[in-house]
Amino acid sequence: MSDATALVISAHSADFVWRCGGAIALHAAKGYAVTVVCLSYGERGESAKLWKQDGMTLDRVKTERRGEAENAAAALGVADIQFFDLGDYPLRVGPEAMDRLVDVIRSVQPHFMLSHSKWDPYNTDHMYATQVALEARMIAQAWGHNPGEKVLGAPQLYLFEPHQTEQMEWKPDVFLDISSVWDKKRAAIECMAGQEHLWDYYTNVAENRGNHFRRNSGGQAGGRKATHAEGFQSVFPRTVDEL
Amino acid sequence: MSDATALVISAHSADFVWRCGGAIALHAAKGYAVTVVCLSYGERGESAKLWKQDGMTLDRVKTERRGEAENAAAALGVADIQFFDLGDYPLRVGPEAMDRLVDVIRSVQPHFMLSHSKWDPYNTDHMYATQVALEARMIAQAWGHNPGEKVLGAPQLYLFEPHQTEQMEWKPDVFLDISSVWDKKRAAIECMAGQEHLWDYYTNVAENRGNHFRRNSGGQAGGRKATHAEGFQSVFPRTVDEL
Amino acid sequence: MSDATALVISAHSADFVWRCGGAIALHAAKGYAVTVVCLSYGERGESAKLWKQDGMTLDRVKTERRGEAENAAAALGVADIQFFDLGDYPLRVGPEAMDRLVDVIRSVQPHFMLSHSKWDPYNTDHMYATQVALEARMIAQAWGHNPGEKVLGAPQLYLFEPHQTEQMEWKPDVFLDISSVWDKKRAAIECMAGQEHLWDYYTNVAENRGNHFRRNSGGQAGGRKATHAEGFQSVFPRTVDEL
Amino acid sequence: MSDATALVISAHSADFVWRCGGAIALHAAKGYAVTVVCLSYGERGESAKLWKQDGMTLDRVKTERRGEAENAAAALGVADIQFFDLGDYPLRVGPEAMDRLVDVIRSVQPHFMLSHSKWDPYNTDHMYATQVALEARMIAQAWGHNPGEKVLGAPQLYLFEPHQTEQMEWKPDVFLDISSVWDKKRAAIECMAGQEHLWDYYTNVAENRGNHFRRNSGGQAGGRKATHAEGFQSVFPRTVDEL
Amino acid sequence: MSDATALVISAHSADFVWRCGGAIALHAAKGYAVTVVCLSYGERGESAKLWKQDGMTLDRVKTERRGEAENAAAALGVADIQFFDLGDYPLRVGPEAMDRLVDVIRSVQPHFMLSHSKWDPYNTDHMYATQVALEARMIAQAWGHNPGEKVLGAPQLYLFEPHQTEQMEWKPDVFLDISSVWDKKRAAIECMAGQEHLWDYYTNVAENRGNHFRRNSGGQAGGRKATHAEGFQSVFPRTVDEL
Amino acid sequence: MSDATALVISAHSADFVWRCGGAIALHAAKGYAVTVVCLSYGERGESAKLWKQDGMTLDRVKTERRGEAENAAAALGVADIQFFDLGDYPLRVGPEAMDRLVDVIRSVQPHFMLSHSKWDPYNTDHMYATQVALEARMIAQAWGHNPGEKVLGAPQLYLFEPHQTEQMEWKPDVFLDISSVWDKKRAAIECMAGQEHLWDYYTNVAENRGNHFRRNSGGQAGGRKATHAEGFQSVFPRTVDEL
Repeated sequence: MSDATALVISAHSADFVWRCGGAIALHAAKGYAVTVVCLSYGERGESAKLWKQDGMTLDRVKTERRGEAENAAAALGVADIQFFDLGDYPLRVGPEAMDRLVDVIRSVQPHFMLSHSKWDPYNTDHMYATQVALEARMIAQAWGHNPGEKVLGAPQLYLFEPHQTEQMEWKPDVFLDISSVWDKKRAAIECMAGQEHLWDYYTNVAENRGNHFRRNSGGQAGGRKATHAEGFQSVFPRTVDEL
Repeated sequence: MSDATALVISAHSADFVWRCGGAIALHAAKGYAVTVVCLSYGERGESAKLWKQDGMTLDRVKTERRGEAENAAAALGVADIQFFDLGDYPLRVGPEAMDRLVDVIRSVQPHFMLSHSKWDPYNTDHMYATQVALEARMIAQAWGHNPGEKVLGAPQLYLFEPHQTEQMEWKPDVFLDISSVWDKKRAAIECMAGQEHLWDYYTNVAENRGNHFRRNSGGQAGGRKATHAEGFQSVFPRTVDEL
Repeated sequence: MSDATALVISAHSADFVWRCGGAIALHAAKGYAVTVVCLSYGERGESAKLWKQDGMTLDRVKTERRGEAENAAAALGVADIQFFDLGDYPLRVGPEAMDRLVDVIRSVQPHFMLSHSKWDPYNTDHMYATQVALEARMIAQAWGHNPGEKVLGAPQLYLFEPHQTEQMEWKPDVFLDISSVWDKKRAAIECMAGQEHLWDYYTNVAENRGNHFRRNSGGQAGGRKATHAEGFQSVFPRTVDEL
Repeated sequence: MSDATALVISAHSADFVWRCGGAIALHAAKGYAVTVVCLSYGERGESAKLWKQDGMTLDRVKTERRGEAENAAAALGVADIQFFDLGDYPLRVGPEAMDRLVDVIRSVQPHFMLSHSKWDPYNTDHMYATQVALEARMIAQAWGHNPGEKVLGAPQLYLFEPHQTEQMEWKPDVFLDISSVWDKKRAAIECMAGQEHLWDYYTNVAENRGNHFRRNSGGQAGGRKATHAEGFQSVFPRTVDEL
Repeated sequence: MSDATALVISAHSADFVWRCGGAIALHAAKGYAVTVVCLSYGERGESAKLWKQDGMTLDRVKTERRGEAENAAAALGVADIQFFDLGDYPLRVGPEAMDRLVDVIRSVQPHFMLSHSKWDPYNTDHMYATQVALEARMIAQAWGHNPGEKVLGAPQLYLFEPHQTEQMEWKPDVFLDISSVWDKKRAAIECMAGQEHLWDYYTNVAENRGNHFRRNSGGQAGGRKATHAEGFQSVFPRTVDEL
Repeated sequence: MSDATALVISAHSADFVWRCGGAIALHAAKGYAVTVVCLSYGERGESAKLWKQDGMTLDRVKTERRGEAENAAAALGVADIQFFDLGDYPLRVGPEAMDRLVDVIRSVQPHFMLSHSKWDPYNTDHMYATQVALEARMIAQAWGHNPGEKVLGAPQLYLFEPHQTEQMEWKPDVFLDISSVWDKKRAAIECMAGQEHLWDYYTNVAENRGNHFRRNSGGQAGGRKATHAEGFQSVFPRTVDEL
């Protein structure tokens, strides 16, 4: 299918694994070409374990983080992973990086996009990445940006699950059944050697979102037997032919 | 299809026409059996034109309103319309009426339900009807309510478009293309002889929601050529296999 | 002026004094006939000082509270004060009381109405009174309610200032300059012998709202020299000929 | 300590276990006398497994549910559990039941109270119970309610964790370390034979709330080593001597 | 009148037409000198039709857009229209442009200001323009900014109607009757040759806002016979002498 | 105590006095070393009285403002006050200033932090300072920022009381009893010679927050006899061992 593509915009290089690894693996299995853009490696702020090693340097952290992310991407079936290396804590996206991101969006022509929650007081990089995603989406739609290129349509932007959802004012309106690819997501999670304390955390999340899937697909009457799920918040309304 | 059913819970007998007539006609055309419950006729509060006639009585108003609603229902292809005649301004749903509503829900086993917005400072009957719908849905799911009956699953409750949407804190998350059945909705609207001042109003709404459909289905790149649409707000998250 | 009338719906008999005494006195001075409905005396829940006296009875509390309210009403220039005596903590408005309230609204035909905030976790009577006010306003607009009577137009419902505004999710969108009638409001406040601990509290409120009036009428450039003000939150949008 | 008491108001007889069993066990271990009021048994709506048995009756369901709740209460160290048996799906609290609840509150004089979230579209009994709790708290504070009794102070009302927190618009502002009593909570959970599908769900919740406890107590620098926690949303502001 | 001035801050050169053309024409007709600042021409993002022509260049688009905007401004009776030409998709306002905008504000000394909604996920330029407007208003009030100049007072900032209002979290609190100048607004709209698909859309909007005007000015009792209206959301509270 | 430190991030040099002077004095009295960072002097936007003097210059305003702030700090017992002199109206924090702020945070290792409300349409510097505080807190927690330094834990960020609280969407969840240090706060307030119009305003605020303290600590039953208090809104959830 011509629009069987998806794009993930990840503030740091591990975010795409915890937050939408299931969606990536599931759509890859369906034949989607999924592109992941890591705006930074999370090298300063999300690599505590590495920094506790003697003689660690910024370059070594980046190399380690990149390796982990590439392994996870492979486990999930990502078609293309790009590292923008823009720095983290804080992340900053200047005009050139924005243009590069718009180029990726136009090249991918994603059927849907994935990024962070709108609010995150713990991690301002996350909410900033979402603002960047919205702005890049807008620019990619502009007929006067690089005239002659194919402009972007109106892909949904799904906000994937943040840590401590309630504090982030994030509310999922769609649950995706990832039971069939859970083993791939767990494998990708286990590529994140530096954040082992989160492995079981996100396993619990996936199991409990499975419960939410069952509950919302069938109530007390049963519901579909999903074992694992992921939740997403849609930014834009859907357009449908049937309710 | 076994669950090709839908249920509309309408506070007053005309609400289902303005607010979801297109959804009704479209799903009826697809083979859904759509049931409409009118909790009241809107005989006191939404029949100003009738009350300006000499010698009008409550019974005559109800009869007129019922006739209009039945004609509109026929125009839309409604499978079953039920009038609970519970009174309006204010509407009150006592235990017996609640049980009757639950019976209808269980009998219909709707694939989805439709009712009013959660807030309406102009018309407390409307927001009350939504509370009633949520409570009835909950009771219909209880295994201990009339044990032995088939319990309700987890149908979506869509909140249809209120008048003055922004004042009602209503935000549509789904737009439905009703272009193919617009003529039926307009015909049903014209059955509402007592509220002629609203005919063009809701035609404008449908046209502009068509614009929203186009915009959200394709952005500046085009989008699907819907001429008319309706918007709905989902109460519950969806469960899906693909984003 | 034909519509120089206003109606206050007060859950307990002292609420109208603290919360909109300035608005009452100011409009009375402008020639408005202001009607106050006290749904209860606040005899159980807002009369702690009286109950600490030996041998106090419910009737004596009501008599004391009524006297205080009548004195305050006189100080403010209230045209008519009515005591519905429906009980407090909790307040309950049954069908007959609702009809009586609608009768008052239709008789007064208020240019604007005043009642409590939409949310009050400390005092559920308050938020209940606002629901009652909205429902009564709706019924009073119904052509089929007591057909032949003059129906209500679309008066604004202003929510007056609650105690601990932020906890009540109350946000004023209009400040009224009550400088010219502040002495009357203070006199009315001093009629509330049983709640002396609140006299200075509401004096502080009036002074600080005066600051807000000055700030919003002129910024750092000056602003109008109001010394005292009251704030109100509008439920409905305004209709104007000039911004 | 004179105020070492707490009161849980639970819509159905199992809610207190899943949602605040840890808080109960922890405070009981600290010497608090914890009272639990179960407004209903959840006999109609939360006992699906029982109703699937042949020949089940309402009385048998209530008996089973009561037994489970009493066992769980014992496991947690509850001082007193009271069953109001008001019916569920829907729950209704009439004037007599309200007075009874106020009597309990006055008798217990709780240092803090616990109840449900403010919004729950899946289960209207839950949000109704919270309204009941707020109203009962208000009445218990009234000097004119049963004059001569000791009136209630201003205990915090904590809203315990609902199912599908984001859909309930529930946001925890306090996390309680329940590591030391987790085994008791798990034991109480296992008393709920009829809802075994939720055992692991709430174990996952407790583990992940433990992560939130650690994160909020120390960030990436470490934090306290809680293994399990519970989250609560406060209705009222706190009053403190030190930040 | 000394303060018969108004200022519109428009992200792109057509925004002021669709969103507040009626307010401009009405106030111009009342003798207001209305200044419009177009921060950009919308040359890249809002000129799709032009870009579909062969050999189009950025300069030609700007020229076309400027011509359309000037014609529309003339049709509305705008006193002064200024093009800042800051670029769009994305719009960026640097320190010099900010100073220039503050100079305009101080020069105009507007009785009120108009700009975009606070949130717009489709078009980040829009919400950015509102942030710019708030910041510029603040700077214009500072006595230490260009000391000696007349500082700004506290003009209201009205947020005009965005496209897809509900998605923008925009809620109008004032409706302005533009019936008398509707022909001028329609004429201005028709100057926008490049966006003809929006002509009928905004005509529908004006008609339906006319309905809202009537409803809010008189309810079912009638209301003022406005045929067309515009809605606005106020950022700041009003200060009044009468409710 | 090792963590008896606190940090105030104040957009302009007087903010810390009005908004949290009591908290500073109280904690200083308890032995906390309180550091105040003034990002600017408020020299352009909050020094109207000075600018009205003949021959005033930016440097003289800064000198005056610095003197006032130092005197107030001394009155409150501030351990360290730092002036970043970044300019105001608008305030801008570049990469170097951000690094300097992070250095302060790491050096202080505050037990809690204090800054402005999240929203302030009157004063964009205020809400910007809060964004800066959140970002600086995040960077200070990063192990890769200046590796080898002690990283920051997870201190609470309290948002202190803004002017016109309701317009700022600020809701206090904690009240601090400042009765014992009120005289120090008043003395500090009186150091602000240039803003004498606010002295009584903030005295009223402190008295009324005292009322809120009493109400929330004991309801109608009494409550603690605080005469003055300050309110704060917590950004992050608390972690506790007892409710």
